[in-house]
Amino acid sequence: MNAPHIDVEQVEAANAAFYEALEEGDFEKVSEFWLTPSDLGVDESYHDHADVGVVSCVHPGWPVLTGRGEVLRSYALIMANTDYIQFFLTDTHVSVTGDTALVTCTENILSGGPAPDGDDEELGPLVGQLVVATNTFRRTPAGWKLWSHHASPVLAGTEDADGDGDETPP
Amino acid sequence: MNAPHIDVEQVEAANAAFYEALEEGDFEKVSEFWLTPSDLGVDESYHDHADVGVVSCVHPGWPVLTGRGEVLRSYALIMANTDYIQFFLTDTHVSVTGDTALVTCTENILSGGPAPDGDDEELGPLVGQLVVATNTFRRTPAGWKLWSHHASPVLAGTEDADGDGDETPP
Repeated sequence: MNAPHIDVEQVEAANAAFYEALEEGDFEKVSEFWLTPSDLGVDESYHDHADVGVVSCVHPGWPVLTGRGEVLRSYALIMANTDYIQFFLTDTHVSVTGDTALVTCTENILSGGPAPDGDDEELGPLVGQLVVATNTFRRTPAGWKLWSHHASPVLAGTEDADGDGDETPP
Repeated sequence: MNAPHIDVEQVEAANAAFYEALEEGDFEKVSEFWLTPSDLGVDESYHDHADVGVVSCVHPGWPVLTGRGEVLRSYALIMANTDYIQFFLTDTHVSVTGDTALVTCTENILSGGPAPDGDDEELGPLVGQLVVATNTFRRTPAGWKLWSHHASPVLAGTEDADGDGDETPP
């Protein structure tokens, strides 16, 4: 086991690098961040019965995607529809327990699709989104890999700004 | 290590029982499902530096809540504003890796708040919600405990029902 601050630093770096790969639109790099069950070196008979290391992913407003095939196809699709995307990560929190790390963060997203007139030189309108994510990483011989990503929109009306205890889910 | 099917059965049972406790509005029982870092028996100096076992929770449309205090307060608040809630779980998928289990499921929710006229005998209007959740459990001497819950609304327009490959995030 590493020293705890080393684990936390490594996980934070992996989390930030994952978002950088998305910003760069680098599909190969994004794929490499996702866990491959065989990376875990667990007995094969156990694998089959407990779906060891099977990944899952929820994009904002989407249903659950399960397994590397579905998850990576979704990224290919998102990348095909996104000409520009930038993530400003805030409130990153890391909790490491054994060989699993849980990261929560706020993804302040600025993105733009292709221009509506099909002009390759122009971007479509930029859209800002406030999204929160829970990312679960596993320690592997090849570094920390994503086992699960769940992202969801933060909707208005959830902050109890006036402190009257009247906070309710939207 | 248990046989894999025993792990999966135990995790599925813990996941279902957590939602039953919510349906019953049993705050004590809900609290017991959430991991307490000291349950994990990890060296204290490691605890402090890596936030071992620190829980997090995202309710649909909410920002991230971190730590038992914030998470349990949110359940007290939701329970105070909910007279009736029922979860029909579908598509439950369990992936167990070592001492961590990842559960994804669809929460088909039917809920009702207090009646607007304050009549204790009457329920407010029932509302249906389609929500997906990623629940991360840790194995402890006291059973599988929730380390993280992230739930989010499924928004329309994410299903590619016509199979033309025109699926995009909403």
